[in-house]
Amino acid sequence: MDEPLATEPYKGVRDFYPADWAKLQWIFTRLRETLALWGYEEYNASPLERAELYEAKTSEEIVNEQTYTFVDRGERRVTLRPEMTPTLARMVAAKRRELALPLRWFSLPNVFRYERPQRGRLREHYQLNVDLVGLPEGEADLETVQLAHALMQAFGADDASFVIKINSRPLLNAACRAAGLEDDKIQDYLRFLDRNEKISREEFLTATGTLSSQDPLSIIDTPDDHRDVATEKAKVLEHVARLKTAGVTNAVFAPHVTRGFDYYTGMVFEVFDTDPSNARSLFGGGRFDGLVALFGGEPVPAIGFGMGDVTLMDFLEAHGLVPDHVASTTQLYLGTPAPEDIPAAEAFAATLRKEGLRVFVNLTERALGDQIKDALKRSIHLFAAYGKDEVASGSLRVKVLATSTESTVTTAELIRLVRAER
Amino acid sequence: MDEPLATEPYKGVRDFYPADWAKLQWIFTRLRETLALWGYEEYNASPLERAELYEAKTSEEIVNEQTYTFVDRGERRVTLRPEMTPTLARMVAAKRRELALPLRWFSLPNVFRYERPQRGRLREHYQLNVDLVGLPEGEADLETVQLAHALMQAFGADDASFVIKINSRPLLNAACRAAGLEDDKIQDYLRFLDRNEKISREEFLTATGTLSSQDPLSIIDTPDDHRDVATEKAKVLEHVARLKTAGVTNAVFAPHVTRGFDYYTGMVFEVFDTDPSNARSLFGGGRFDGLVALFGGEPVPAIGFGMGDVTLMDFLEAHGLVPDHVASTTQLYLGTPAPEDIPAAEAFAATLRKEGLRVFVNLTERALGDQIKDALKRSIHLFAAYGKDEVASGSLRVKVLATSTESTVTTAELIRLVRAER
Repeated sequence: MDEPLATEPYKGVRDFYPADWAKLQWIFTRLRETLALWGYEEYNASPLERAELYEAKTSEEIVNEQTYTFVDRGERRVTLRPEMTPTLARMVAAKRRELALPLRWFSLPNVFRYERPQRGRLREHYQLNVDLVGLPEGEADLETVQLAHALMQAFGADDASFVIKINSRPLLNAACRAAGLEDDKIQDYLRFLDRNEKISREEFLTATGTLSSQDPLSIIDTPDDHRDVATEKAKVLEHVARLKTAGVTNAVFAPHVTRGFDYYTGMVFEVFDTDPSNARSLFGGGRFDGLVALFGGEPVPAIGFGMGDVTLMDFLEAHGLVPDHVASTTQLYLGTPAPEDIPAAEAFAATLRKEGLRVFVNLTERALGDQIKDALKRSIHLFAAYGKDEVASGSLRVKVLATSTESTVTTAELIRLVRAER
Repeated sequence: MDEPLATEPYKGVRDFYPADWAKLQWIFTRLRETLALWGYEEYNASPLERAELYEAKTSEEIVNEQTYTFVDRGERRVTLRPEMTPTLARMVAAKRRELALPLRWFSLPNVFRYERPQRGRLREHYQLNVDLVGLPEGEADLETVQLAHALMQAFGADDASFVIKINSRPLLNAACRAAGLEDDKIQDYLRFLDRNEKISREEFLTATGTLSSQDPLSIIDTPDDHRDVATEKAKVLEHVARLKTAGVTNAVFAPHVTRGFDYYTGMVFEVFDTDPSNARSLFGGGRFDGLVALFGGEPVPAIGFGMGDVTLMDFLEAHGLVPDHVASTTQLYLGTPAPEDIPAAEAFAATLRKEGLRVFVNLTERALGDQIKDALKRSIHLFAAYGKDEVASGSLRVKVLATSTESTVTTAELIRLVRAER
């Protein structure tokens, strides 16, 4: 090796140094705790999946342009999962007879997309996936939105800081049919809506050759002549009303919300930041009753949502909901006056660890003053030197670094002090 | 979709259903808790790395035959990490000026190897990586072995059930040179040793054209004429003696242990199961003082080890150290006498969740008797129905499913009862 190796990670992915990882784990822990309160269980799978899994129902754009797909040495086509829902459907289908439905399942996988490099778009991110599998439209949809709401509340977000936009694919489909859109154009129209009006309605209708159509959204607005549309609209409005009654005060009906994936069949919802400077989609989901049946057998209804770590962290930071720093979990820095004291210090640390204390032992030849500086740099609160004097006396001087207060303690007192400190 | 999709995962990887994942998390939690006691911090990185990272120092066999390497849409060669140590070295090199050395770092990454299909060999597994970075040979080596020992003890393994074999690359190198092996043959010889005598010494020496050489292992055995060998051997023996003094009663000197990777430069060690029916390597590691310098700048000494989840679980199961089952974390199954009771039950569940209770609400139209059966199937300990009678009376009948005992309680009593139950 003549040329030194580059230290950067691969393009578009992140290195998680301990402070970065602790921040992500702070998010994960809060999510896991809240999901446990709702009876949810965690599952996982490999990021490697057979490529065909995504060719059925994930959006075409994602499969053709945004996946990492390669051929392995056994000529199998492999894809790094771009999303978790197809894996969930596969796993449910594989054990449908053994699993006790309904399933309340969540996962915290990393997912991969081959994105063009642009601001804030990563090629790998973590995505909470929450799914309620085995129940038809109705209570399950309402509980799922309530859970999404509870997750935001668990981070301290108040209802004014975000809005939950609710819509329905059957409503959109009925409105599109009422507007004269042919079935094969409906999906195109939904994708147009999902792109959030980057092109005008006229441009879209011209492009799809349905210029003469009415605007499906204006039919939803006043559906009087269209019974199907009126029925589906009434259903969504009732869902929104019930959510408000259940305490989800920021649920609103939003007829333009579609969600990107082709596999949604019922309610869809999307959570937005209400801050005008960050008025973006935070996360969302919907009902996908047809996905499990792609693996054969009877359909299994399901509803779920996905929440990316980067978007969530941006929201939490924008709203001041992230603690200043996640402190070191190490409780005591055990200094060593001289290198020959290390074996005794390690033996003493072993005693403390048996009591559940988290102890860092200095192994360098630094002077004690520099060891104290090192403890401060590591945000460890307590410092005590341990050498032959301490072995002889059976007591130590322990220093609270934040206040520089010192006291002489026995081992038993030290253990109590460390436990009381945090 | 005419042909149903296959439900199997990609070849050689695992699906983790909730019970499987809970078992793995049980291992991870125990590891994390023990590592925190020793002042270790967790880091992580993407499984995607630039391919060149592994071409420098990972063993040739792994790079050429066992990695997943592909070319991305931007013509970059990408490898799914086969091991974590090169990533660790890269991350340390990238921030060497900011990081407070020594680092006590660990990670629990999934790693990938393209293995020929064979029993027990997976293409993806999780691997604990523990590294102490920034300290030269000496106390750091001893602490690292003590930590490996403590991790085994944390799972309840006693010192008779495993052995920690200690060796030294400088000792092996000195013995090889004393035996007349040329420098470029030494690595071949170490790999031969690592393969654990699947070919005889004669076959090896013939193949490498060093038939006339003495056996390096017999020189280590009686190094009298070889000062370098004697010095290095004395050093290892002293390490082993100090480890025994520190309570690692199962540390032994083992001159044939080499570890597979080319990058080791000092102490190497490998932990073996002592059960004759499972006498295999469990995990191991060693010192790699040259790896960080591949990224430019001064060398940063380091020592560490890696422990795979499958091998560890096999050991724990063989020695009866895995709890029978990891119970459901959900504490209360809230039954609903009729579907119209669901909104009230959800509202009541919300009250309980605010108190930190983990509550599953039935959303099906099953009869109450079937809901109790469902609770049993899910291993949830407590069951209570909640409908209009309970709303009216303000009390519920709660059933302990294991004993079929029932009692009528207020909400406050229910909360106390659930908390007391586990």
